[in-house]
Amino acid sequence: MVATDIDLHTDTPDPDDPIFALHRGGKMAIAATVPLRNAQDLAMSYTPGVAKVCEAIAADPALAHDYTWVSNTVAVITDGTAVLGLGDIGPAASMPVMEGKAVLFKQFGGVDAIPVALDTTDVDEIVETIVRLAPTFGGINLEDISSPRCFEIERQLIERLEIPVFHDDQHGTAVVTLAALINAARVTDRELDDVKVVISGAGAAGVAIMKILQTAGVRKIAVVDRSGVIHPGREGLDVVKSGIAEATAPWARPGTIDDALDGADVFIGVSGGTIPEAAVASMAPDSIVFAMANPNPEVHPDIAHKYARIVATGRSDFPNQINNVLVFPGIFRGALDVRATRISEGMKLAAANAIADLVGDDLSETYVIPSPFDPRVASAVARAVTDTARREGLARRPY
Amino acid sequence: MVATDIDLHTDTPDPDDPIFALHRGGKMAIAATVPLRNAQDLAMSYTPGVAKVCEAIAADPALAHDYTWVSNTVAVITDGTAVLGLGDIGPAASMPVMEGKAVLFKQFGGVDAIPVALDTTDVDEIVETIVRLAPTFGGINLEDISSPRCFEIERQLIERLEIPVFHDDQHGTAVVTLAALINAARVTDRELDDVKVVISGAGAAGVAIMKILQTAGVRKIAVVDRSGVIHPGREGLDVVKSGIAEATAPWARPGTIDDALDGADVFIGVSGGTIPEAAVASMAPDSIVFAMANPNPEVHPDIAHKYARIVATGRSDFPNQINNVLVFPGIFRGALDVRATRISEGMKLAAANAIADLVGDDLSETYVIPSPFDPRVASAVARAVTDTARREGLARRPY
Repeated sequence: MVATDIDLHTDTPDPDDPIFALHRGGKMAIAATVPLRNAQDLAMSYTPGVAKVCEAIAADPALAHDYTWVSNTVAVITDGTAVLGLGDIGPAASMPVMEGKAVLFKQFGGVDAIPVALDTTDVDEIVETIVRLAPTFGGINLEDISSPRCFEIERQLIERLEIPVFHDDQHGTAVVTLAALINAARVTDRELDDVKVVISGAGAAGVAIMKILQTAGVRKIAVVDRSGVIHPGREGLDVVKSGIAEATAPWARPGTIDDALDGADVFIGVSGGTIPEAAVASMAPDSIVFAMANPNPEVHPDIAHKYARIVATGRSDFPNQINNVLVFPGIFRGALDVRATRISEGMKLAAANAIADLVGDDLSETYVIPSPFDPRVASAVARAVTDTARREGLARRPY
Repeated sequence: MVATDIDLHTDTPDPDDPIFALHRGGKMAIAATVPLRNAQDLAMSYTPGVAKVCEAIAADPALAHDYTWVSNTVAVITDGTAVLGLGDIGPAASMPVMEGKAVLFKQFGGVDAIPVALDTTDVDEIVETIVRLAPTFGGINLEDISSPRCFEIERQLIERLEIPVFHDDQHGTAVVTLAALINAARVTDRELDDVKVVISGAGAAGVAIMKILQTAGVRKIAVVDRSGVIHPGREGLDVVKSGIAEATAPWARPGTIDDALDGADVFIGVSGGTIPEAAVASMAPDSIVFAMANPNPEVHPDIAHKYARIVATGRSDFPNQINNVLVFPGIFRGALDVRATRISEGMKLAAANAIADLVGDDLSETYVIPSPFDPRVASAVARAVTDTARREGLARRPY
């Protein structure tokens, strides 16, 4: 009878599925950090005692960071338009990902993150909404917002807010990719300013990877989308791709991805497409392949390994997992600790170097990036961020 | 030396003050309710496992209530315009109160409440912002928003959202006041439809108390503001006070508060003003005085007791504390449990009766309302709400 009942409701999630069972009721909760046992406790944490804390903050708003939880919070904000590989599934369906991200913030960075799913996809409305929410949070982590809207939203928010704004799909991915590339170059005895890189994917991650590699000194980059290499002569480029074309000229020349990979040192896949075995075979000797599409890498690691010296993916079941959980908890931990006004390029570079350096003497072809569960990662990233913030004058709490 | 340092910074809160010490770093935190120890845990709570939960919700958005924390969350939202008795102190300075409220939600109702302070005081902007945030929360508790803006904001939100919206300064206060009055009428052998009530204060609380008393059958109410009794003949009434005048006519006649109290059975003070001893003396025999202004009641309980049979205040250091912590945790606990689409008048009445009935055989002149720490209160209120929601067809989860 029970089995029949379940069969009759094929749209209903199987309650015995361990993933649905785990998700029932959500993955997080609020906890009070003060006692509330009696009238005396209430008089301290709520009225009338709380009034003097309010008055102190009214006189000096910076005290909100000392006497509220704001200083340790980050909003994980999405509009549900580019969730994982699922695309535009809307705000309600995006919440399990935002909650997952929030608990990772807590687990790895000690940051109190609050998932926020917005019921609008309009750029100006998203920006206005977040600006109005700003007194509530110590930082803003943008998540799973589709390209090219994500660039404009982040740009406007950075301009208007004095708290850190960080689109993790861009910068978290870029920082961890650079960290892996720094070590892959060490293993293969390459200099970053000489490597030839092909990035497959011109969305949030692809653009941010291009930018951070250039900041790190990489000069020879071609970015490829479904129509081939993005270059200034191509017709119909939108504003983002025009920017890519300009930023990668004159190195990036017309051609297919196969053309671009011929003789290239590094492949970085953030596209979800596939590349043929022959193209991998045509890369330079001791090539580096970061096939980061999830769950299906652009080329299977077993195939890639026939030609490439270093292979990395986004998956936990192969060596060299490039996972931005190595980045965002430490980035915000550091930024919140010094009350940084923004996340600078210098902080991102320093974070990438800190992650790369943690590998130390263990560095090898199959270990260019630390494990997400290496307990040293978040604090090393946080220290890189706080040191850089102080040096760059972006720390409001410079001790 | 240390003492001198502190003296030199008189604007800085004294770090030895136990209230500031308690508030350092805020009063709440996020906690993960799932394990995150290893790659397998990550694959269940985050990618790739989370994707199937997202897809299920995308196919049936109601499943967000089953598989995210949304179903147990309430946003405690303010614009900082009417915080405690401090007035318009802005969003940052309001956060300690919002956090205090949030931890009370958790402690007394098991509700995960998130403090939200908005950096706008524009009615339309507040409404739009909250509508856009709605997928993030299971309910909206409006807090410390100034009158008359609070009425319009709540009205629009109730119209536009399918989750409960509850302005606690109105309805929490109204429900607990009605509960106390039900029992005070029992002690003094009065019928609600015959008592003569004077409400001092025409803001959020005063208006809501007037309305709930009328719904409960009270017919003879006069509402008084600084200019005296509000009545249809008075010049310059705004839209809210015109509504009061209309709702209380023809009982409410021109006069001062002293005129109104002459022979009245019940005084309800939510104004912060004071009333002279002679006015209390002029009330009916066995009168009922609820002097709820905090921290200074409209008339000191020791004075009131010389004439009144029942005296209640908002303070914990006198008997009969009328405190809306008796209301909001249970109201939202019940509403969330059945996924109510709104908080109805019927639910509020049922909640008031449930609170009043808990006093039971202990009912006396000095015990007309349970203690905020009576552990039965929140569940009794929640049960009243869920029963009413089912009866009224407002429960989306009717089991």
